[in-house]
Amino acid sequence: MSKKYTIGIDYGTLSGRAVLVDVSNGEEIASSTLEYKHAVMDEYLPDGITKLPPDWALEHPQDYIDVLGYTVPEVIKKSGVDKNDIIGVGIDFTACTLMPVYKDGTPLCFDDKFKGNKHAYVKLWKHHAAQSYANRLNEIARERKEKWIDNYGGKISSEWAFPKIWQTLDEAPEIYDAADFFIEATDWVVWQLCGKQTRNSCTAGYKAMYNKAGGYPSKEFFKALDPRLENVIEDKMNCPVTPLGEKAGTLTAKAAELTGLNEGIAVAVGNVDAHVAVPALGIDAPNKMLAIMGTSTCHMLMGTEEKTVPGMCGVVEDGILPGFFGYEAGQSCVGDHFAWFVDNFTPYEYKEEADKLGISPMKLMVQKAEKLKAGESGILALDWWNGNRSVLVDVDLSGMFIGMSLLTKPEEMFRALIEATAFGTRKIIETFRENGIAVDEFYAAGGIAMKDPFTMQIYADVIGMDIKITASSQTPALGSAIFAAACAGSKEGGYDNIFEAAKHMGKVSDKVYHPIKENSKIYDKLYREYDLLHDYFGRGENDVMKRLRAIRADAKKQ
Amino acid sequence: MSKKYTIGIDYGTLSGRAVLVDVSNGEEIASSTLEYKHAVMDEYLPDGITKLPPDWALEHPQDYIDVLGYTVPEVIKKSGVDKNDIIGVGIDFTACTLMPVYKDGTPLCFDDKFKGNKHAYVKLWKHHAAQSYANRLNEIARERKEKWIDNYGGKISSEWAFPKIWQTLDEAPEIYDAADFFIEATDWVVWQLCGKQTRNSCTAGYKAMYNKAGGYPSKEFFKALDPRLENVIEDKMNCPVTPLGEKAGTLTAKAAELTGLNEGIAVAVGNVDAHVAVPALGIDAPNKMLAIMGTSTCHMLMGTEEKTVPGMCGVVEDGILPGFFGYEAGQSCVGDHFAWFVDNFTPYEYKEEADKLGISPMKLMVQKAEKLKAGESGILALDWWNGNRSVLVDVDLSGMFIGMSLLTKPEEMFRALIEATAFGTRKIIETFRENGIAVDEFYAAGGIAMKDPFTMQIYADVIGMDIKITASSQTPALGSAIFAAACAGSKEGGYDNIFEAAKHMGKVSDKVYHPIKENSKIYDKLYREYDLLHDYFGRGENDVMKRLRAIRADAKKQ
Repeated sequence: MSKKYTIGIDYGTLSGRAVLVDVSNGEEIASSTLEYKHAVMDEYLPDGITKLPPDWALEHPQDYIDVLGYTVPEVIKKSGVDKNDIIGVGIDFTACTLMPVYKDGTPLCFDDKFKGNKHAYVKLWKHHAAQSYANRLNEIARERKEKWIDNYGGKISSEWAFPKIWQTLDEAPEIYDAADFFIEATDWVVWQLCGKQTRNSCTAGYKAMYNKAGGYPSKEFFKALDPRLENVIEDKMNCPVTPLGEKAGTLTAKAAELTGLNEGIAVAVGNVDAHVAVPALGIDAPNKMLAIMGTSTCHMLMGTEEKTVPGMCGVVEDGILPGFFGYEAGQSCVGDHFAWFVDNFTPYEYKEEADKLGISPMKLMVQKAEKLKAGESGILALDWWNGNRSVLVDVDLSGMFIGMSLLTKPEEMFRALIEATAFGTRKIIETFRENGIAVDEFYAAGGIAMKDPFTMQIYADVIGMDIKITASSQTPALGSAIFAAACAGSKEGGYDNIFEAAKHMGKVSDKVYHPIKENSKIYDKLYREYDLLHDYFGRGENDVMKRLRAIRADAKKQ
Repeated sequence: MSKKYTIGIDYGTLSGRAVLVDVSNGEEIASSTLEYKHAVMDEYLPDGITKLPPDWALEHPQDYIDVLGYTVPEVIKKSGVDKNDIIGVGIDFTACTLMPVYKDGTPLCFDDKFKGNKHAYVKLWKHHAAQSYANRLNEIARERKEKWIDNYGGKISSEWAFPKIWQTLDEAPEIYDAADFFIEATDWVVWQLCGKQTRNSCTAGYKAMYNKAGGYPSKEFFKALDPRLENVIEDKMNCPVTPLGEKAGTLTAKAAELTGLNEGIAVAVGNVDAHVAVPALGIDAPNKMLAIMGTSTCHMLMGTEEKTVPGMCGVVEDGILPGFFGYEAGQSCVGDHFAWFVDNFTPYEYKEEADKLGISPMKLMVQKAEKLKAGESGILALDWWNGNRSVLVDVDLSGMFIGMSLLTKPEEMFRALIEATAFGTRKIIETFRENGIAVDEFYAAGGIAMKDPFTMQIYADVIGMDIKITASSQTPALGSAIFAAACAGSKEGGYDNIFEAAKHMGKVSDKVYHPIKENSKIYDKLYREYDLLHDYFGRGENDVMKRLRAIRADAKKQ
């Protein structure tokens, strides 16, 4: 039998990228990217006239179709592979990225009637204009002592599905009424590929409060939010939930024509960019944590039981790989911390030095911070510049530096910020462990994992574990290709399940970060101090951060 | 009667400055400065060969004589005043600035025998090589429950007299043995002027643990330090202590020849640069605090009773003005904080902007910080980058910033540092009040008071009191001239006491900083948060700063 291939397509915030992958070993043969023509619409609708309010962020679904029509033919052409050897396609997406559609899948924004209605478009994950709906939802859930909210660290985000749906209902009832479905973009693209609507267990669980055992929240709950929402599930989301790793269907003739692929090949159930990365690193079993480290960090971990772990972003059965409970945690500010510091506090002399060396100020700051020994600066930070997601779930927390003297240099404070984010990760790991979920191995993907060995060594030293790094710079797309191979089946030259596919196609780099014992000893001491301040400032002993925020808000009003 | 004049001479760390002043109204007619030829010797002795160990800081007494010989004739000449109308001279000095001399006042370093011996020179106030002696002295004083140490906030400094004397005895017994006296430079210069040794009550009290009621510490105490020190007072400091405001004597023929002044005019008892400033602002009564604000801040306040106030630098009878108990407190880092921030954290863009505007980065940072409203940044700092002098007396404390977000700009952190030093001053004021010493008025002198209206307004807002500012840019020299007029006597055209002299010659500027009510309200709230963190980090509830320091020290050793 000839070599077989699958295609994974990763839909990011500004572009979509297809990767063509060798099913036997996960080798990435070719890739192609297309930027979205409409990019993120946060000022105007495509008419260039209709202005959007603050905090809005929309996308245009035609851009997603264009990605299919451009990148897939491109990778086939670039790779030189025979299209008959391509046995499946899988996609992953940002989430919750949600749109209203008609029964046949046509987005309402494609309808001339609604072109000028902002609620007819895709509400991107970072559409933050539904915050007031999220607040009311959380309040009512707490009042009603809804149990499912424990699965989300006690709080759901304005980025998730129901705040967005509720906002649509409230602000544009005509759109709510006209829509037959509200659907995640990932499921919608899969629908376009295989002609059949599915709902994947990942976004259903993490973004739409679906639970495999208990279903969606009750009608009574939705009625308590708004009587008009009582039947939202049967009216607007009436579609069964399919576990990740399943086949959604086969490629339609229409999609085959669009992509240049063969009709009838396997189409995987939709997935999410972070979660799809897990098998891309060959992770196929519980208790192995994967951190996607970039501007912020997302941690994924599978367990065999559903437990309540304080401060996680969600626990979802089949949410990462089928058959396991997928736990997600997060740090809302990681690379953003480092960028904030370098952007605002790189002194003139350092900038000149960097220019002379022909490197970026960030690179120079790293070089200087690298020369310091662990603990040498005497400075500690709390990594809450953008609040704390896990394990405190508190957006009103803020940053802290302690230990400065008149001899303190910028690189010492910069390094303290990096260390603080590592302590934050350790806190998440320890919280999982304290709540009965073992964390035995640690993997990392994302920009920081790939490009910043200095930070990664600090993380290894701080958590006291080896850190294995993704071998792919296109981890999510590779993950989608792996899911595609898993649902194509062994008869077609793929695999019979996602675990087999992950074993053969997932990969980590040769580079493993091993903890340096002497550093770990020092970081153990520093972590005890971090932990003490974490609880003092984060758990109500001294709510100074909140009071400072209130003083700030008052001052700005005047 | 024609107008009368006095001359005040202020001996700083690097130069001496004489000012000729109109006795009737304190007007400064002329001034002249001479830099010390030997400057501060912290690397080599004048031979250029004998290397000094770390933390040493010496001066050469010939430089002090040269100041007399150059600046006094200069101010007479510049002013055009008839020398017959100059009725007195007074001096002030850094302290404790101490030297070994022979019975006739000749410094041991003038003796060829001792020219190459570093202990024969003047140990400048910032000579820090006697730290181990100070530590042992404090330890023994505590063990012996010596009561006088309560008058110094429970701790004496390595900068003061006995650690320096003890170091000399221990490291150069030949110098200790050869010296007939150890004497403050201020008293030594007065001796050169009037031919008679005196000891002023200010340095005796603040730097040599002398108490008007109880004298020096006991022989038993000195013996406990070192048996060779048992008789240090009678052997090496055998001279009565004279209250400030008294006449030390009259100008000798030799000094008249050196200075161009008339033989026989009044010479005031020696004084110290900070303390001499009090009458220069017209302060002549208790419960008026004067802050000398520069790289660090010194606070002086007079009371009518001797009380123990935690964390003050000293309480000394006649230590500021005769007849009162002089209280001194301090903040070890004020302007140094601001300079640290601007030196290390002025970003490239700000530097370019400052260059374009033709102003310093500090000036630009102030301009940006000035645009912020009180409380608007949401950031709070603890001003302990150089430890805390008053009221915690703890050099092992360090700095803290709290409240940062990803939108925080450098000027917000800069302003928080300024505010933190103002909160530190408020803490000192409140501590005096809590211990029964009223603080009814607030005065300021020094570089920050004269040149930084932005900071001064914040101070007024934070302490909720009017702040009156010195009218003189040469406040200490003016103060010395006032003391000279006070001891010249009314018969000669001067005054009969320092209070009369202060009333006529002391002055504050027209510029008074009044608290802005709305700001004070916000700062009251912020101060409560400062106070809470001050006690949490400063009084043992969480000694994280000390543990970080220990971790730092360990890391540096490796």
